[in-house]
Order: sequence, then C-alpha cells, then structure tokens
Amino acid sequence: MDDEHKLASLKSAVKHAFEQMIPFNRVLGLSVESLDANSPRLRFEMRPELVGNPVRQILHGGVISATLDVVGGLAIALALAASKTDEGKMHESSAVPLLPNIGTIDLRIDYLRPGRGRYFVAAGRVVRLGGRVAVVHSELVNDADEQIATGAAAYMVG
Amino acid sequence: MDDEHKLASLKSAVKHAFEQMIPFNRVLGLSVESLDANSPRLRFEMRPELVGNPVRQILHGGVISATLDVVGGLAIALALAASKTDEGKMHESSAVPLLPNIGTIDLRIDYLRPGRGRYFVAAGRVVRLGGRVAVVHSELVNDADEQIATGAAAYMVG
Amino acid sequence: MDDEHKLASLKSAVKHAFEQMIPFNRVLGLSVESLDANSPRLRFEMRPELVGNPVRQILHGGVISATLDVVGGLAIALALAASKTDEGKMHESSAVPLLPNIGTIDLRIDYLRPGRGRYFVAAGRVVRLGGRVAVVHSELVNDADEQIATGAAAYMVG
Amino acid sequence: MDDEHKLASLKSAVKHAFEQMIPFNRVLGLSVESLDANSPRLRFEMRPELVGNPVRQILHGGVISATLDVVGGLAIALALAASKTDEGKMHESSAVPLLPNIGTIDLRIDYLRPGRGRYFVAAGRVVRLGGRVAVVHSELVNDADEQIATGAAAYMVG
Repeated sequence: MDDEHKLASLKSAVKHAFEQMIPFNRVLGLSVESLDANSPRLRFEMRPELVGNPVRQILHGGVISATLDVVGGLAIALALAASKTDEGKMHESSAVPLLPNIGTIDLRIDYLRPGRGRYFVAAGRVVRLGGRVAVVHSELVNDADEQIATGAAAYMVG
Repeated sequence: MDDEHKLASLKSAVKHAFEQMIPFNRVLGLSVESLDANSPRLRFEMRPELVGNPVRQILHGGVISATLDVVGGLAIALALAASKTDEGKMHESSAVPLLPNIGTIDLRIDYLRPGRGRYFVAAGRVVRLGGRVAVVHSELVNDADEQIATGAAAYMVG
Repeated sequence: MDDEHKLASLKSAVKHAFEQMIPFNRVLGLSVESLDANSPRLRFEMRPELVGNPVRQILHGGVISATLDVVGGLAIALALAASKTDEGKMHESSAVPLLPNIGTIDLRIDYLRPGRGRYFVAAGRVVRLGGRVAVVHSELVNDADEQIATGAAAYMVG
Repeated sequence: MDDEHKLASLKSAVKHAFEQMIPFNRVLGLSVESLDANSPRLRFEMRPELVGNPVRQILHGGVISATLDVVGGLAIALALAASKTDEGKMHESSAVPLLPNIGTIDLRIDYLRPGRGRYFVAAGRVVRLGGRVAVVHSELVNDADEQIATGAAAYMVG
C-alpha cells in the first residue's frame, strides 16, 4: 500500500474503533463526521435517553462532558498519526495503533447554553502536542450552530 | 405533617427524581445511596456499556464526569433544602422543588486512577453556597475505596 | 456629552482604573493596549521580578494566571458597557461604574509553552454574558505571537 | 552525613530556593511555613500591593492563583524527595535537585470567599504522583482559618 491508501485505511479503522469498539460511545450514539486532523468532528442525534432535565428537555451535562472528552482523544489520535506520517515513519511494521494509549489527565467543561437541538456536533483542536502531554480545546454546537459548551482537557500520550 | 415527616417525604421525592425522572441518570444506573446533606452519595454498578477502553475494561471518562456533575447537583439540592428548613420556611405552600433550578456553569474533573471496580460511589460536598452561585467538590471511589477521580464544579442556583 | 464622547470618556476611565487603581496590576505592569469590547488586550514587558524559573528565565505561572484573570474582568466590563450603550441606557444618572462588581468564580489556565519573550499580550473574549454569570476565554501570546497559555474563567456580574 | 541530616539539609535548601531564588515568589512575599511532605504550607502577609480591589481591600485573584500554583510545585518537590529517600536512593552522588523540573500543565482555582485577612496560608496535597504527571489539590485560608480558595493543578514531573 502507498501512504495515501495507508492513511485512508487508518482513518477507516479509527472511525470503526471510536464508533463501534468503545461501548459507552455507542450509548452516546457518537458517529465520526470528520477525521480532519486539524479539527475532527463527532456527531450525535438528540434522543430521549440523553436528556438531563425532563421539563426543559435538554441534554444531560454528562453527555456533553463525555462527548468533549472523546473528541479530544480523537483529535490527539489523529494528530499523532499525522505527525508520524509526516516523519515518514509509517511502515507496515510500526503501524499506528487504532486506539493509542491516550489517558485523560483532566477536563474542564464550560456550559454556555442549554443543550437544545435535533443533533449536536463536537469538534476538537490540539493546542499542545508534546511527547508526554497533549492539550485539546473543544466545543459542542447544535444544529443551529449555537455554541452549547466548550472544553479544555489535558491527556497523557505515548 | 410535622417537619420531620416533611423532610423524610422530601428526601424520598429527591431520591425518586434523581433516579427515575432524569433519563440519562438511568442510563448511568445511578442510585442514591445517601441523602446526607453534608455528603450525599450516588452509587452505580460496573456494566459492560459503561466501558471506555475495551482492552483495559475501565470506566469511560464520560461516565465519571457525568456522575460527578450529578452528585454536585444533588449536594446543592440537599443543601438548599436544609438551609430552607433551618430558616423555618418549610410551609406547605412553599414546598422545596424536587428538581430545583440548578444549572452547571462549569466542571473540572481530575482523573486520578483507572476506573476499575465492581461498583463506584460518588460523594459531593458544597464548599460555597451563595444566593446565586454554589460550588461543589466531589470524588468517585471504587469498591476498594480507591479514589478514581475528583471534581470541582460551579452551579447557578435559584 | 453625546454618546460617542461618553464612550470615549468611559474607555479612558476604564484604562485608568485597570492600570492605576488596582495595586497588583501595577506590580504586574499591565497596560491596556486595546479596549475593543470584542477582544480587549493587556500588555506587559518581561521584567526580572516576573520570573518564575531563574535558570530558564521564564515567566512565573502566577503572572500568567493573574494577567488572564484580569483580562477576563476587563472583557466583561467592556461587554457590559457596550450592552448598556446599545440599549440606550447610558444616561448621566446611570453611569456605568468604572470597576463594576465583577467577581471571579473560577479560573482554568492551560500552560502551553514556556513564558519566554520580551513582552506579552493577553486578550479576552466573552463567550457567555448572562445577567448573573459571564464566561471568558483568553490567551497570552509573546512578542513572536506564540501562544503561551489559554484561560477559561467564570465571573459573577451585577 | 546520615539520612536524617541529609533530609534536614535538603529541606533547608528547598526553603531557600522557594523563598529566595524565585523572583516572583519574593514579590508575593511567600515564606515556607511547613515542609511536611504530606501537607507543605506557604504563608504571606497582606500588603497594599497585593490588593486587587481598592474599595473592598481584598487580595487580587492573581495573588491567590500564583500562590496555589507555587504550593502545588512545593508539594510535588517534597513528595518526590520523600519517595526517593524511601527508596534508599539518597546518595551523595544522586542529590535530589532543589528545584526539580516541575512544569505546571494546568491549574483550576475556585474563589470561594473574598481574600480578606492579615495573613494567608496555602497548603497542598499530592493526590496523584506518577512517573510523568502529578496532581495536587490545594487551599488558601486566612488568619481566621476561613477557606478563601481551592486549587487543583496537574504538573509534569521528571
């Protein structure tokens, strides 16, 4: 396989891993909408079981924090894959792991607006990518492109 | 009803509200283990759908952040109820709402150890209770009483 | 005075208040570089007493957190002034206070790169402006426009 | 030197380093009050230049965040020294560095009460001490033992 095919294959595998292999991501109903390494996106539909306030019918805060944590891990996985590809290290024998060993150190969520919408999109952006620690800023918007929440999280990598 | 019965009745209603009326709390499987206003506790069992890393079989970070957000809201609801009872304001006509209008402003989670265990207990402690803003510190421990994560969150009240 | 003059006068007073009236801002050496309500900016020069690591000669983390806290308060003060002007409420008798009653609820700083530079510029952006709570995102860059740190903070207003 | 003397000598050196060698710590007026590895404490006196609100005469938020950042670094330095001593690694030839290479990854401060008092004491507690990342919880109290603020911060170590 040439590098382009390898990258496509890798992306398909990452999508599968995040959507299918992580049980709680399935509970959330996350689908990988973009694997752009600079701004990957996850999407999920509003569903009754994701509600946190039955009167106001808005998302549970935990659905928001969970999704922003996941999109942060996705952003780092893609950034790591991109940096390894750039360095020409992408040999058959040193395949980038589909679920690299990324552990969340801490996470801050700012809840800016009630989580109202038919669907929601989370995007992440790596703002620091070191050999041991990475930091991601993220946001969740609804189908009207209103910013529902933002996140900042630090992760251990490698 | 005298005040003691009123408080018991209120607590039972709060338990019902947090366990049954909030859809995503049911997804998490949260049960209210203690309604002690100084340190309320939620408990949930490990279940396959709560896993975030299928290889390591540990809790999804989002389950942890969601639970610590909920226990913070519970701590504030109970602290508000207690402060209203203390002030002798607990008349039939001014019943404390079961799900008071508590909105999370922001949330920080520190993930300290992998979420491994048969069950988990989250506890919250109100460290600031103002007329408009309250702050809660919280923690999640596993069945071996190991501290898995801590939380700090600010909430709008009233 | 017409509104334009009033706004100019207000801005001059805000600049004076932030630079001269707050003692610790003088310790930091903060100067108000822009009063743009959408992205106000503070600037300070590197000085020996602001150093946190004498070997590496980089900014003390506390200088960074302090400055990002201040720029958040400045952003809110200007946003409140702008919203009051917009609403045509800017009468002689209801002057916007120079140092409105803004209290920081909490603050998160991400330290992204060592604080190295001849001078530093902090900018803030209000992402939530409610009647009781406001949230600001901020960043600190050095003279080479490298992002040194980012901040997210919640404030009580009014 | 036997180990007891070595430890005393090390502690004296750490105290000197934190009080004298870090310029901005001198601006803050920090003095090391306790080198207890489980809960080291810093103290500083209220002084006019540390004020953030001239009307209310309370501490600048940046003084608080700076001090809690420092006490976190101190707690980790002592915890690392203690762990190395425990392991019997404390030989002449492998002296624990006075200012080990500890970098703050991120910091959250909760401002709980106005910073009013004649003096203030900050204490830190290491809640996670890994080979690469450590996490500290901290608090600032005033001379009446009122909790002014709490902190949670992650640091890179080693």
